[in-house]
Amino acid sequence: MTTMSPELAARVRWNADGLVCAVVQQYDTREVLMVAWMSDQALTRTLETREATYWSRSRQELWIKGATSGHTQAVHEVRLDCDGDTLLVLVDQQGAACHTGDRTCFDADVLLADGA
Amino acid sequence: MTTMSPELAARVRWNADGLVCAVVQQYDTREVLMVAWMSDQALTRTLETREATYWSRSRQELWIKGATSGHTQAVHEVRLDCDGDTLLVLVDQQGAACHTGDRTCFDADVLLADGA
Repeated sequence: MTTMSPELAARVRWNADGLVCAVVQQYDTREVLMVAWMSDQALTRTLETREATYWSRSRQELWIKGATSGHTQAVHEVRLDCDGDTLLVLVDQQGAACHTGDRTCFDADVLLADGA
Repeated sequence: MTTMSPELAARVRWNADGLVCAVVQQYDTREVLMVAWMSDQALTRTLETREATYWSRSRQELWIKGATSGHTQAVHEVRLDCDGDTLLVLVDQQGAACHTGDRTCFDADVLLADGA
């Protein structure tokens, strides 16, 4: 794997842990699937391979989404927000995005319902 | 303003700064508009008033979205993710969500284009 261009690395506003927040969205239905974090290495690998790759904060290791579950994310597009601290990653999700087996990580817990 | 129920406050996994990440999505088109942060007080106000309210990390104060710009967000729905550290806030955005005047904070900077 090559390293990230210094130009790109400088544009991303990494947090104190060297990570950037990634919002992951299904490219066609536009469902928000999950939020995860990317390190320099995770973002570099995602851009090069179009396989969504994150940094697992709990395991403290590179996390190739779906490598064990088969629930991979083929990356269609990556965007950086106006202040450089959040990525929007448009993917084609195979199977469930959530470790619970739900399609998205936001399916289960409604704090405020529409029109309530 | 009332305070948050202890039950809800305990379900949210606040970060070291006492904040939770909020992904903000247009309720009908499903565009991801922006990502911001909510304090206990910001989330309580959002749930009570249905006016999207955040914590401004730069100004270190409560931030009622659109209070100065008029670009308010009427809240349709709020969901908490599987591990309790991210909110999905579905809103009806008036005007631009981004301080640059763009519709969303992700309009300007494409790191990886679809099908490239």
